[in-house]
Amino acid sequence: MLKGHQTWVFPSKPVIKSTAAVGGPHEAKGPLANDFDLLHGDLWLGQESYEKAEKKLLEEACEIAVRKAGLKKQDVQFFLCGDLLNQIISSGFAARTMGVPFLGLYGACSTSMESLALGSLIVDSRSGDNVLCGTVSHNATAEKQYRYPTEYGSQKPPTAQWTVTGAGVAILSSGGEGPRVTSATIGRVMDMGISDPFNMGGAMAPAAVDTLTAHFRDLDISPREYDLIATGDLGTVGFQIAADLMKKHRLEIPGEIFTDCGILIFGETPPEALAGGSGCGCSATVTYGHILNRIKKGELNKVLIVATGALLSPISYQQKESIPGIAYAVAIESSR
Amino acid sequence: MLKGHQTWVFPSKPVIKSTAAVGGPHEAKGPLANDFDLLHGDLWLGQESYEKAEKKLLEEACEIAVRKAGLKKQDVQFFLCGDLLNQIISSGFAARTMGVPFLGLYGACSTSMESLALGSLIVDSRSGDNVLCGTVSHNATAEKQYRYPTEYGSQKPPTAQWTVTGAGVAILSSGGEGPRVTSATIGRVMDMGISDPFNMGGAMAPAAVDTLTAHFRDLDISPREYDLIATGDLGTVGFQIAADLMKKHRLEIPGEIFTDCGILIFGETPPEALAGGSGCGCSATVTYGHILNRIKKGELNKVLIVATGALLSPISYQQKESIPGIAYAVAIESSR
Repeated sequence: MLKGHQTWVFPSKPVIKSTAAVGGPHEAKGPLANDFDLLHGDLWLGQESYEKAEKKLLEEACEIAVRKAGLKKQDVQFFLCGDLLNQIISSGFAARTMGVPFLGLYGACSTSMESLALGSLIVDSRSGDNVLCGTVSHNATAEKQYRYPTEYGSQKPPTAQWTVTGAGVAILSSGGEGPRVTSATIGRVMDMGISDPFNMGGAMAPAAVDTLTAHFRDLDISPREYDLIATGDLGTVGFQIAADLMKKHRLEIPGEIFTDCGILIFGETPPEALAGGSGCGCSATVTYGHILNRIKKGELNKVLIVATGALLSPISYQQKESIPGIAYAVAIESSR
Repeated sequence: MLKGHQTWVFPSKPVIKSTAAVGGPHEAKGPLANDFDLLHGDLWLGQESYEKAEKKLLEEACEIAVRKAGLKKQDVQFFLCGDLLNQIISSGFAARTMGVPFLGLYGACSTSMESLALGSLIVDSRSGDNVLCGTVSHNATAEKQYRYPTEYGSQKPPTAQWTVTGAGVAILSSGGEGPRVTSATIGRVMDMGISDPFNMGGAMAPAAVDTLTAHFRDLDISPREYDLIATGDLGTVGFQIAADLMKKHRLEIPGEIFTDCGILIFGETPPEALAGGSGCGCSATVTYGHILNRIKKGELNKVLIVATGALLSPISYQQKESIPGIAYAVAIESSR
């Protein structure tokens, strides 16, 4: 049900029946390691290419989530997924493995919440009872595709972020136990002219602020409605830019409830990760692992996840286009 | 509302308030030229790259559809779009121009009906009143990305298809006059092991048959329910394979109501187009131009469009993966 300009409210509050977070070696060394269902010691996962390893991360996450929900693959009606690879091949090939009806999405690193928003719409409108939503990214495939193969060892500026190797998925259901999705705000594409692919956080910050503003306006609530508001993967640089932009727009989110998945996943001052984590898998694994665990433990009651995406491609960069950003906000509350 | 395993029925029957089809020079020479709203004499559209020309095709189609619906951009609540380019940049950049909340999709050439299916769900669930759905492809960008730049002049086998240069979009509304969307079947990813990117039709045929079978099973209707059933872009080779597969599955669609957008757009024996048209823009322009015009003229009452997509990427091909296919079926009926 539409409320305001761009926010969907879900009266039935679809249930997140289960989630799964699968990560790689860097995630295993990070402060949220204990929140992953499965961690891999190397980037290859026993596969012969990084792309096949990325697909395997996603397949493993899907399998774990289906099992944790006490379901079988055939109980899942729809699979909503996307990733960073050209033609979202990780999602397409994992959908082949799953064998269930598939809706391919592309929202860059915002895909985690784009899929959760659309999945909630499907469940809330009684168009599906068990819907699998998720996304995946892999450090080595993303670096190769967007910047340079990691084997080149090229230097990066301090604004650069570290693509998370990880898959995060959730099973949304019309019934059962678990945290519930209450609303979702669909973002507009925002572009403030940043064209440096080593500063994705800066490029995405305006979209995060625009979607946050729309969310509070459409629902006529204040940020204090939530115990935690987490942006997707702005990292330390983008998060500061977002904070500055919010001041300009007179949007005040108290510091103690405002954070960023890209800062959380590798900690405040990660040596390799520079400005923090990024990639589709960043907000997906942090939300479906760490944040939902905190809800289940009773530490959090209502959270808002604002996943951000940078809608560039290597071609658009080469053709001197700036980097448009987008953000999707999804509100999740405890079932208690 | 879910019916059967994978079909959504839309009780409110969302209205296709307006559509737009914009094409390029080959489409202008084809038998459906009169069904386009706008045709361009060259592939560049006055832009400095083919990618920018592709974006312009889409922006023009959006503008025309909004105008034909008697709306302004700000009346459109959501824009659902995808394309064939890496990271769907044509859609992302057109969404930046539109300035409305955006949901990026990727279903390869099936994106036309993936977006119409999801758009119908949004309108039917009262989650949006005016939703813009569409897709675009461009011959030169697709050839460069998936096979070889056209300037190389490389030879193609007769199974190859010709990517349509065109954008097709529709405005779906909760009210007003126009053809109506009644149901949509979401496809599974099917893969019969074809790995030749010059035989996309063959790779997609099993998905078309699987989705058609699911559609008739879920709704418990026969193909005779429709005056026309059109697959997306199987072309002459893929369409014959689909016909053979249907015989095996004992699914009989009478020849006089069964056709393919990839065969229609360039005619039966197009000299350059080999096995027929393909690309996101194929089923989009044929449906939103030619087929909806026939509905409006009273020549057709109920049609089923089964858009097909090949979920490969150049990387998946290089890594020796086969080509998975998917198909989305959407039923449209006359408002009379």
